[in-house]
Amino acid sequence: MKVTAFGEIMLRLSPDNRDRFMQEKYFRTYFGGSEANTLIALSSLGVDTSFVTKLPENDIADACIRELKGNGVETAFIARGGKRIGIYYCENGASIRGGKVIYDRQFSSISEADKSDFCWNEILKDTDIFHFTGITTALSDELASITLDAVKQAKEKGIIISCDLNYRRTLWSEEKANRVMREFMPYVDILFANTGSALDVFGINGKDDEAVMLKISEEFGIKTIAFTTRECRNADENILGGILLADGRFFSSKKTEVNIVDRVGGGDCFDAGILYGLINKLSPEETVEFANICNAYKHTVRGDYCRLDAEEIKAICSGKADGRIKR
Amino acid sequence: MKVTAFGEIMLRLSPDNRDRFMQEKYFRTYFGGSEANTLIALSSLGVDTSFVTKLPENDIADACIRELKGNGVETAFIARGGKRIGIYYCENGASIRGGKVIYDRQFSSISEADKSDFCWNEILKDTDIFHFTGITTALSDELASITLDAVKQAKEKGIIISCDLNYRRTLWSEEKANRVMREFMPYVDILFANTGSALDVFGINGKDDEAVMLKISEEFGIKTIAFTTRECRNADENILGGILLADGRFFSSKKTEVNIVDRVGGGDCFDAGILYGLINKLSPEETVEFANICNAYKHTVRGDYCRLDAEEIKAICSGKADGRIKR
Amino acid sequence: MKVTAFGEIMLRLSPDNRDRFMQEKYFRTYFGGSEANTLIALSSLGVDTSFVTKLPENDIADACIRELKGNGVETAFIARGGKRIGIYYCENGASIRGGKVIYDRQFSSISEADKSDFCWNEILKDTDIFHFTGITTALSDELASITLDAVKQAKEKGIIISCDLNYRRTLWSEEKANRVMREFMPYVDILFANTGSALDVFGINGKDDEAVMLKISEEFGIKTIAFTTRECRNADENILGGILLADGRFFSSKKTEVNIVDRVGGGDCFDAGILYGLINKLSPEETVEFANICNAYKHTVRGDYCRLDAEEIKAICSGKADGRIKR
Amino acid sequence: MKVTAFGEIMLRLSPDNRDRFMQEKYFRTYFGGSEANTLIALSSLGVDTSFVTKLPENDIADACIRELKGNGVETAFIARGGKRIGIYYCENGASIRGGKVIYDRQFSSISEADKSDFCWNEILKDTDIFHFTGITTALSDELASITLDAVKQAKEKGIIISCDLNYRRTLWSEEKANRVMREFMPYVDILFANTGSALDVFGINGKDDEAVMLKISEEFGIKTIAFTTRECRNADENILGGILLADGRFFSSKKTEVNIVDRVGGGDCFDAGILYGLINKLSPEETVEFANICNAYKHTVRGDYCRLDAEEIKAICSGKADGRIKR
Amino acid sequence: MKVTAFGEIMLRLSPDNRDRFMQEKYFRTYFGGSEANTLIALSSLGVDTSFVTKLPENDIADACIRELKGNGVETAFIARGGKRIGIYYCENGASIRGGKVIYDRQFSSISEADKSDFCWNEILKDTDIFHFTGITTALSDELASITLDAVKQAKEKGIIISCDLNYRRTLWSEEKANRVMREFMPYVDILFANTGSALDVFGINGKDDEAVMLKISEEFGIKTIAFTTRECRNADENILGGILLADGRFFSSKKTEVNIVDRVGGGDCFDAGILYGLINKLSPEETVEFANICNAYKHTVRGDYCRLDAEEIKAICSGKADGRIKR
Amino acid sequence: MKVTAFGEIMLRLSPDNRDRFMQEKYFRTYFGGSEANTLIALSSLGVDTSFVTKLPENDIADACIRELKGNGVETAFIARGGKRIGIYYCENGASIRGGKVIYDRQFSSISEADKSDFCWNEILKDTDIFHFTGITTALSDELASITLDAVKQAKEKGIIISCDLNYRRTLWSEEKANRVMREFMPYVDILFANTGSALDVFGINGKDDEAVMLKISEEFGIKTIAFTTRECRNADENILGGILLADGRFFSSKKTEVNIVDRVGGGDCFDAGILYGLINKLSPEETVEFANICNAYKHTVRGDYCRLDAEEIKAICSGKADGRIKR
Repeated sequence: MKVTAFGEIMLRLSPDNRDRFMQEKYFRTYFGGSEANTLIALSSLGVDTSFVTKLPENDIADACIRELKGNGVETAFIARGGKRIGIYYCENGASIRGGKVIYDRQFSSISEADKSDFCWNEILKDTDIFHFTGITTALSDELASITLDAVKQAKEKGIIISCDLNYRRTLWSEEKANRVMREFMPYVDILFANTGSALDVFGINGKDDEAVMLKISEEFGIKTIAFTTRECRNADENILGGILLADGRFFSSKKTEVNIVDRVGGGDCFDAGILYGLINKLSPEETVEFANICNAYKHTVRGDYCRLDAEEIKAICSGKADGRIKR
Repeated sequence: MKVTAFGEIMLRLSPDNRDRFMQEKYFRTYFGGSEANTLIALSSLGVDTSFVTKLPENDIADACIRELKGNGVETAFIARGGKRIGIYYCENGASIRGGKVIYDRQFSSISEADKSDFCWNEILKDTDIFHFTGITTALSDELASITLDAVKQAKEKGIIISCDLNYRRTLWSEEKANRVMREFMPYVDILFANTGSALDVFGINGKDDEAVMLKISEEFGIKTIAFTTRECRNADENILGGILLADGRFFSSKKTEVNIVDRVGGGDCFDAGILYGLINKLSPEETVEFANICNAYKHTVRGDYCRLDAEEIKAICSGKADGRIKR
Repeated sequence: MKVTAFGEIMLRLSPDNRDRFMQEKYFRTYFGGSEANTLIALSSLGVDTSFVTKLPENDIADACIRELKGNGVETAFIARGGKRIGIYYCENGASIRGGKVIYDRQFSSISEADKSDFCWNEILKDTDIFHFTGITTALSDELASITLDAVKQAKEKGIIISCDLNYRRTLWSEEKANRVMREFMPYVDILFANTGSALDVFGINGKDDEAVMLKISEEFGIKTIAFTTRECRNADENILGGILLADGRFFSSKKTEVNIVDRVGGGDCFDAGILYGLINKLSPEETVEFANICNAYKHTVRGDYCRLDAEEIKAICSGKADGRIKR
Repeated sequence: MKVTAFGEIMLRLSPDNRDRFMQEKYFRTYFGGSEANTLIALSSLGVDTSFVTKLPENDIADACIRELKGNGVETAFIARGGKRIGIYYCENGASIRGGKVIYDRQFSSISEADKSDFCWNEILKDTDIFHFTGITTALSDELASITLDAVKQAKEKGIIISCDLNYRRTLWSEEKANRVMREFMPYVDILFANTGSALDVFGINGKDDEAVMLKISEEFGIKTIAFTTRECRNADENILGGILLADGRFFSSKKTEVNIVDRVGGGDCFDAGILYGLINKLSPEETVEFANICNAYKHTVRGDYCRLDAEEIKAICSGKADGRIKR
Repeated sequence: MKVTAFGEIMLRLSPDNRDRFMQEKYFRTYFGGSEANTLIALSSLGVDTSFVTKLPENDIADACIRELKGNGVETAFIARGGKRIGIYYCENGASIRGGKVIYDRQFSSISEADKSDFCWNEILKDTDIFHFTGITTALSDELASITLDAVKQAKEKGIIISCDLNYRRTLWSEEKANRVMREFMPYVDILFANTGSALDVFGINGKDDEAVMLKISEEFGIKTIAFTTRECRNADENILGGILLADGRFFSSKKTEVNIVDRVGGGDCFDAGILYGLINKLSPEETVEFANICNAYKHTVRGDYCRLDAEEIKAICSGKADGRIKR
Repeated sequence: MKVTAFGEIMLRLSPDNRDRFMQEKYFRTYFGGSEANTLIALSSLGVDTSFVTKLPENDIADACIRELKGNGVETAFIARGGKRIGIYYCENGASIRGGKVIYDRQFSSISEADKSDFCWNEILKDTDIFHFTGITTALSDELASITLDAVKQAKEKGIIISCDLNYRRTLWSEEKANRVMREFMPYVDILFANTGSALDVFGINGKDDEAVMLKISEEFGIKTIAFTTRECRNADENILGGILLADGRFFSSKKTEVNIVDRVGGGDCFDAGILYGLINKLSPEETVEFANICNAYKHTVRGDYCRLDAEEIKAICSGKADGRIKR
């Protein structure tokens, strides 16, 4: 099985540890973006992947491609050109102090890409799952249109369509998100969201997660929906969970408490975990548990993405979460 | 409103993270001192400030002045000369292991300053609040005398006098502290302390914080007294609170639990928070809550001081202390 | 009193903080090994120590010897020669993610040492306690034989024999460990172990720690046995305890919860704490409490070993574990 | 005397030492821009300065302003708003390998600023010299127009106009630069350039530097022109010189060979040196020598700007360039 | 054209800058080995490459493979298993102090590999050039035999055989090297060496480089031979050159002086440069010039290998070696 | 042979590389002092050494002692107590920019030591050479008196007296240095100086180095005098030499050009080299050559002292200074 994803990958600039912006004179660099993060996680779990985006012709973008390649993600369909790679500055929170993100992603090559940059007929060859998120569609009207085109072509080829709502308030209004994302829903086979994005994008809420998931499923006719839940004690400690609606039933993971090293990209690993379960035909119970631990595990690794070892994740699912040293 | 403070600013040398002294070959440098820390916090909150001290004529002191200036603190009245900038070595504790401070501040320019270094008439022009601490007065007899002089001149000009007891055992005995600090009390309008310093300096104790505050208020006729409370679970986790005696009534903040990044300078931010409340005419309830969160917030930022954003502090006061990322 | 220990000291290569292997391009280097760690702790507690091993003739091994010397451990009996210094790669865990060790210690100079490298008659002169662990004896048949020789000569000289079972699954099988270690037991005066190693090496288990200790004591006639207990909440938080069988009675320490900086070498500091208690004639109650805090304290310091201050450990034993800054 | 400058200040992201982009995972951050660099140098030489630009409302730009303030540059006339702070990536060359700059400065707040952002009447009050460069005028047509407006107002107020041609090929074509810059020349009192920019911008060349300077002087009626000369042996070693046309005569500095630490901003320090000479009424001979050593000195300090000590520069001018330690 | 190479890739551990071993507590890690270095250089020049070796099953080796992949080198034929990845410690020299290498490569997976690890028939499919060095053949008798087998199979398939003598004194004696390497010579089409290795391995010397090359050519019937020349002023400055014997004529590059950042892997880039010239049908004059600049360029980049840009190398060949910044 | 030295050892705080003070937020720490530097060099050359000083009772001084011990220097006679360890801040120069030292050594424990801190009778037991410098005697009148006492006792015991003039302008005037140092000269057997210190301390100059050495020898009756010579091209490149007056004849080393990594402590290694030559009965020609290369070698290693390998130094003396890698 091969997963192809479409979206933006950015250069992240972060001070180390719990430092504030510019407290130190160095930024740790990372590359990351929701869709690419999901692919790298899938790749480390043994799934074939290909990332589609547009990046400028410069040394920074070259390094980004080397990092994707090194992580086993195919980069043959990355268009080159345009003005810049998007940047975001990110500082960790600590205790009562929240983390902080400053986006500087406007005018990036991908957000200014046009249809001629991507030949979906070729790109989608051999693909089994096509994955995108609400970030991709928010980058520009053109990109929403390109994505819709890709989704339609994929659907025709019998490719499974996977979408994470991933609402970003700084990119578009709730109104516009609603209008655009509704166009996509008829094609979506697997939807990733949470109560927040469901409300922001579709204006759907309910007495609990399951109620929201049910409404979405009924409204859009989507059979497979996966939600993450997150209870924030403070910037250092969160409690994570996952709920999967599949075959008309709800499956909930155990709640997992994590001490946070880096919380960026947790949801992307959750997506990877669900897709891994589907690809490897885990039961829904196993799948949602696996995905929740993928999410939690990411919180213990610095950076936007993390490599996952299926055996290690399964062992933690089975209760080996005591953190002992493996010699 | 403008706050002028008088005291010592030192070079802090610390190993990173939780390392012991000399475990690594590098010291992270910081500049800090109780009074300057309070001013930088106030400056970041939008208050005009001026720091008065004496520093030697060398590149290290120049850098210190650049840092104060960059943080918006006026440095025009810093005298130059003398032998050295005071130093303190500081290592973080971890869990059951306590932190450790080694002072090397003797013979510093400010501790050997004399009256001719400061023209209070000029310095206090435009000042609304004059702030000093029990550290300033402990540095030398001459400095205690200079400070008393400043306090008297300020009082005559109708300037509010703010004092933090800040008892430092390595600088003087309880007996001497008692003798010297009692001379200042008749002039003090706002007193910062806690049960520890109240006992050490004035020999005053009581069944609880309020009892001690009341005794001080009665003995010295001080109307506004603010106490911090600190419960130490271990070197990583403290529970902080604040109590304000104002208009004859006690106002207590909620207790706030913090995971500690750097606990130096917390009390100085508490002082800044109280002064900010007074200057901006917050209610006593709001003021003590604001000050306690300033204190707690400082514990999440490395270094002796931290910049505070009034809106962010107020949001945490209102319950947004879950540490979520602000995008 | 002087303690001589025999074993392997390795170069540890670790990414900083909670990073995964090769996430950063730098390895922090440490030197460490169970027996050397115990000696450095003892040396910092004021006990004379000498470490016996074999190291290659190169700059890395020279640095290792300088570090031992700097920490006050005698290095006069370290043989030089052979192929290499053993290496182990070690990454910290975080929260639900366990730590990880990759050993690269085969063919090290000490594991290929032969009898001619050590003149025990000279080495053991002035020694009061001879300490080794189940790691030393697992390195090679020759090394087990050399150690047995050393133990017998020491016994003849009236030297106390101290042994930590320290079972390492990657070095030998349970069967072999059983066969070899049983040969040593008749000579052992003080045995360090826990329920895990007791089961792995001797196949001995029981309803609780005391039951296991009793069986060992009865089977091998060992009067003094010390066990560590460890409850792992996750990779960041452990609860530690110690039990000492002495004079036919059991003495248990209080349980101590630690936030972990680096858990390698905790048991080695426990051993040092027990030996310190015996050497300084602390009561069994004091000894096991002291040793448990030595173990816990090590968890707050990065590296394989840590220096211990007897007064500081005793203060924590007395309840001063609130982590306040010592100014 | 007070110097006001107008231009862009950017965030520079550089790998350390001689590393290539992304060879390490960290970028050292610097703030810099031609006009700001000149001001910081002037400020360190004791001249009052004010920097005029536009920066976005975020923590990165706040840090930039703190750095300017800390270096004594007035920031009161920096407009806030717009989308982003410009960025440039910069790696050092080494030996035969040239350095490399990747600009990501499009859409920066200053390049999209409009006339309403700057009230020149207020800004220019108390200003004696107004300084800008060909970078400022290249950022946008609007900015060229704003600058021209500023120059005209300044001229009316009797302020000296200082301009560095500073041609940047990536910002505009030679044709456009020619058209725009010619409009400014009638107002310029002091012009900084070199043979390269004179040719690129004005199409003026000649048999040697003096010939080019003479042509410019005659064509535009500019009395004071200063050229830098640079002979590049390789990326590590350059030979620098300066030529000043003043009072109708040419004054040439000695040639100075430098081993390069960071060559960015050398010319900006040359400009500062010339302006310092004029402000402090040094002779033309002294002025050009002083400016050339300012340029050379900058090459020995990492970052975009460097602080200069007039006494130290003069001592080097007098021949004390042997690099001995000053104790 | 595709180049397949066979050999060892190691983990290099180096202190930064000019530091001595263990002067700092950190080792910078690199992966490198002569054959892999050549492939990465070729890959960056646009040539298809595949690296054949054996690496253990652990996280360190996984990272090595990710780095090869990221650099575009095919890793499909890397066998996994065995005990360890070879290590070498390397410190830079400075001025009169020479650099230093400590090898710890014995017992590495590749040096203990056997015939069953490599299926040459499959590996060599699509390969145009097979490259190995005298290091590969020195690792073990088995590896020499495997390499000979590969060379014979390659020859049969009409693949060009490329060999770098690369004599390593610590791996084998001159006698053994002579005996083994002579067996390979009849198959070699392109030989890389210098006067040192020619003498060490074959006992061949002569009045100058050309004389030695001629003797080798005559004795072994090799038509294409490339020599590097190196004149060492000190550890910081070398003068490099290249000589190519092709079509019965000698072609010498210009001499290039370099200030050294890291001299490891220079020869490997020279090899890549010659192979690039052959593949891209450069003239012999161009080829040897190109290869010499590849060698020199590597000296300016830290690490074992460096990425090369053909246009940049050619520009330097054309005289643009002044190290100016490319904006 | 054993060398005992008496003096001050300080904590050095330096920015890395060529950075200015406070340009980075970190100081690299070093311990160093002229006499200790000489001892560490001697110890690395195989000579027994003991360092006598006074250090405070704190963790920083403990680390200093561990470093001396680790380097094989006996620390048994280091007195503990007093107020502080002396500090000096040191930044490297670069090219035309000179290095810079800021001393903060006043009131250090050793500079306030008194006679009761040192029992010379015991200290000098087994000592063959007693070494001190003009820094020791400049620290205080008491210390000069203590040193004179030590020298007299040593002389009585037949110990060789070695003295380096080492004039430090910030510690005392030329007049005082002259008065004090003259008292010591009658006891000195080996004197280290250069034309600068000879003039500063004794007011002796001459047409060349030899002339000055002769005058000193005649005036004070000292038979063995060693001078260093230093020609400074710039902060990166110096040319070093040594001259030895022995047995009434002059012996000059070759001149050695060095690219400088860290020039502090070069003279101290020269002293060690001369003493090594005397102890090991090298010829005067060999001794001065050896000492000069020790001096030059130190310039290539960062820190105050460096470890020397006698074989490596001799190889460089024999002309192997081409900086090739030793594999």
